[in-house]
Amino acid sequence: MATDVKFESLSPSEWFRRNKELAGFANPSRALYQAVRELIENALDATETFGIHPFIKAYIKYAERDNWLSIYVEDNGIGIPKDEIPNVFGRVFYSSKYKVKQHRGIFGLGAKMVILYAQSTTNKPITVISAQQGSDKVYRFDIMIDTLRNEPLIKYQEEWDNKYKWHGTAVHVVMEGDWLKAKHRVEEYIKRVAMVAPYAEIHVKEPDGAVIDIERVTLTLPIPPKEGLPHPKSVDIEAVKQLISRNGDSPVSEFMVENFDGVGEETAMNFLQSIGIDPGRNIKELNTDEITHLVTKMREYNEWRRPRADWLSPVGTELLEQGIRKTLEPEAVFATTRKPSSYSGNPFIVEAAVAWGGKIEPSDRPIIYRFANKVPLLYDEGNDVVRHVVDEVDWSLYKVKFPAPLVVVVHICSTKIPYASAGKEAIADVPEIESEVRLAIREVARRLRVYLSRKEKEKEAMMRYAMFTMFSREVA
Amino acid sequence: MATDVKFESLSPSEWFRRNKELAGFANPSRALYQAVRELIENALDATETFGIHPFIKAYIKYAERDNWLSIYVEDNGIGIPKDEIPNVFGRVFYSSKYKVKQHRGIFGLGAKMVILYAQSTTNKPITVISAQQGSDKVYRFDIMIDTLRNEPLIKYQEEWDNKYKWHGTAVHVVMEGDWLKAKHRVEEYIKRVAMVAPYAEIHVKEPDGAVIDIERVTLTLPIPPKEGLPHPKSVDIEAVKQLISRNGDSPVSEFMVENFDGVGEETAMNFLQSIGIDPGRNIKELNTDEITHLVTKMREYNEWRRPRADWLSPVGTELLEQGIRKTLEPEAVFATTRKPSSYSGNPFIVEAAVAWGGKIEPSDRPIIYRFANKVPLLYDEGNDVVRHVVDEVDWSLYKVKFPAPLVVVVHICSTKIPYASAGKEAIADVPEIESEVRLAIREVARRLRVYLSRKEKEKEAMMRYAMFTMFSREVA
Ligand SMILES: Nc1ncnc2c1ncn2[C@@H]1O[C@H](COP(=O)(O)OP(=O)(O)O)[C@@H](O)[C@H]1O
Ligand SMILES: Nc1ncnc2c1ncn2[C@@H]1O[C@H](COP(=O)(O)OP(=O)(O)O)[C@@H](O)[C@H]1O
Ligand SMILES: [Mg+2]
Ligand SMILES: [Mg+2]
Ligand SMILES: [Mg+2]
Repeated sequence: MATDVKFESLSPSEWFRRNKELAGFANPSRALYQAVRELIENALDATETFGIHPFIKAYIKYAERDNWLSIYVEDNGIGIPKDEIPNVFGRVFYSSKYKVKQHRGIFGLGAKMVILYAQSTTNKPITVISAQQGSDKVYRFDIMIDTLRNEPLIKYQEEWDNKYKWHGTAVHVVMEGDWLKAKHRVEEYIKRVAMVAPYAEIHVKEPDGAVIDIERVTLTLPIPPKEGLPHPKSVDIEAVKQLISRNGDSPVSEFMVENFDGVGEETAMNFLQSIGIDPGRNIKELNTDEITHLVTKMREYNEWRRPRADWLSPVGTELLEQGIRKTLEPEAVFATTRKPSSYSGNPFIVEAAVAWGGKIEPSDRPIIYRFANKVPLLYDEGNDVVRHVVDEVDWSLYKVKFPAPLVVVVHICSTKIPYASAGKEAIADVPEIESEVRLAIREVARRLRVYLSRKEKEKEAMMRYAMFTMFSREVA
Repeated sequence: MATDVKFESLSPSEWFRRNKELAGFANPSRALYQAVRELIENALDATETFGIHPFIKAYIKYAERDNWLSIYVEDNGIGIPKDEIPNVFGRVFYSSKYKVKQHRGIFGLGAKMVILYAQSTTNKPITVISAQQGSDKVYRFDIMIDTLRNEPLIKYQEEWDNKYKWHGTAVHVVMEGDWLKAKHRVEEYIKRVAMVAPYAEIHVKEPDGAVIDIERVTLTLPIPPKEGLPHPKSVDIEAVKQLISRNGDSPVSEFMVENFDGVGEETAMNFLQSIGIDPGRNIKELNTDEITHLVTKMREYNEWRRPRADWLSPVGTELLEQGIRKTLEPEAVFATTRKPSSYSGNPFIVEAAVAWGGKIEPSDRPIIYRFANKVPLLYDEGNDVVRHVVDEVDWSLYKVKFPAPLVVVVHICSTKIPYASAGKEAIADVPEIESEVRLAIREVARRLRVYLSRKEKEKEAMMRYAMFTMFSREVA
């Protein structure tokens, strides 16, 4: 009499194949944009983060069928170990970036989505060519994904001598796409990448022959971020249990000092005593309730050092201003890099700039450029914390009357960007981030006001002078 | 010399544990709301969809610690087979709803997120009690998830005689939450569920003692949707390859008729001939390029029958009006259920209503009630196709002057709701859906205009009559 119901299990790649739109692959134009974006972000992560000046080539061409496109992205990055190439492209949730450190990548998903979309629409494997620094060989793999097993299918494999000591990675993929609709977004994306990475060289060839040549504006590279430890306020019980089962064979106090950021010996002692756990007990001996107690209190305690910002790599006020000048050619630009702050144990830094006049077209409200870990965010602006803050500002306080030639740039970097979706397009409303964004915008807006007032006064002075000369002429 | 980089693989449950916000579990208040929501949606899917009048109890209480809450949700649904209880709650991407059929659930994720959030914050297992219809026993399992393996951990197990022939499922969970912030959303959610499911009985007890008692307004249940086949326009190459490897040992034409919706024998013949594939060949014999060709053309071909709407279960104009009257107590309500339509091979139906006056408070723009497969959507309105359409409407054409007491209700049902995120809060901009939403809203807005004009005229007539009586008095 029981109702007959069938149960089914999906592998993560099969799940994302069926729900592509959750990762930004919603339709042929957005998918094309997203693919270019994921590949370029991987290229930047493989260069800049390791102290290499990024030199990236992206060639987009029409392919065999009307709505098929060929995308080729090459970088001069650190390359991928031979044995890992099939895994990093062929297994969903496989990454070198699951760490406390600032990266563009975070989910271990982007490269795989590109392959899944390609094989679902053109039935073609992706080609990956890679060599690590100092490698004697260059390796090529043609890969598809066995979605039922979440495993790479190696379709072709080859290697050759690395005569020119090349290192880096090149990816070639053929997928369905709508270039005409994606063109504008792709171009905008590249332009905005250049704005926050003025040390990058990017060459793009478009299907219609157009070329975008982004030259370096500077040789200064930001200091690569270090890898950090989780902060006691950012962990949950599950995470701590995992740490214990991996590293747990020491006194609780030692365990805390070694596995967490912001915990010195004294702090650990004070904390443990305050919650009634003997610092000398072996962490392995704590029972379930004691662990629950420990972690719950770790998240509540307010005497930890703030999470360190060494795992972060902001753009920096100077580079940001340079990038904006180069890209937007405004009359004036004011930028700021705020001090590090944190939300639930994750360190973050907000940078903001306003650009005014020059080649910026006047519009009815501020044009917003949003960035997260140096990634330009183009879609879903309405859902983003930055849009919410900018809309709240009373711009008349800053002498801005719309329509006005005003661009607001906001960059948020963090070891954990609280994206609202796996497509990485909007940042969720986190109160701590919201308030830093507000402070940053106010700060640069005030400098804009000073600038505009001075301009106004100069104009008045000019007028007075003109009046004066007119008047004196009359008198004379 | 190669840079040392560590690679890591995450199981889907470990991935979602780390990225809870992608599934709506962003902070203690939203997580509490989301947990209640996922449990109630599962309860509704287990009743209404199988012709059972939903009778749901939801008890929310404070628990051991200040910010811990206990949530208990019980339904009278079809229950879960004993052997599947640990799987459906303990494996991410495990579901009975991966089908061409309208469900509230779609991702096979909701119940697992509730457990993951609970065990990460309180270290407690979830308790599930269930009996299928006609079962002699009632089963209880206490479950946690081994996130590294994506497997259930059974912490406790028990069974007893089903003396009262009970069937259904009860879930009890203790998790961190912020009731004061979530209260309003939870109440709003329940109220809105009642609006589109006026045949449901829902009893909610809140921590502060408040009680919400939703009584049935009607005994009429919507006709349960059937399970369907994919439409040729909705498939991708990967999906067809999977079908072939499962069912593929027949002539291509037969394969098409049997595995797809909207394909009769004649259509299959015509289509295959038009693309140059011999209908009589065994599907197994097609090579890679031929399969690519077949599927690419299937997606382009325009002569398929439209996808069928038998897999859908709209609310229906009458029930919708009843539900709105009951919940909002307006002065007037106009509802419509549009004809089935489709996007990329997925059938969908749009229903819309406007409610006016009565107990509705005037506001500066229309208040929107959004629903997808009968699920109220409360967050991320700014990202939703419905908000975009409503904002575009020139309401003055319909005699509405703001502030006005106007509510717009839109329900979209489909075998595949194009959610913008795994938290299921906003529907992406799909042009076909957008246009149906627009037509639906215009239709009911026109009826509102007729109503408001008539009211205006009656008022004028009254005025004239009043004037007349005044005048005649004067004359007399
Ligand atoms: N161009 C590249 N150079 C070096 N490594 C790469 C490159 N592209 C991808 N990888 C490796 O593949 C992994 C998976 O990439 P991806 O699926 O995009 O996820 P994520 O970038 O979030 O880690 C990366 O973590 C990185 O180790
Ligand atoms: N209350 C319930 N009654 C019957 N079956 C349930 C109930 N809750 C969950 N299930 C089963 O568990 C499965 C997984 O639930 P969930 O993780 O919420 O994903 P989804 O609802 O998207 O399938 C459902 O598909 C259903 O088969
Ligand atoms: Mg990536
Ligand atoms: Mg569910
Ligand atoms: Mg679900």
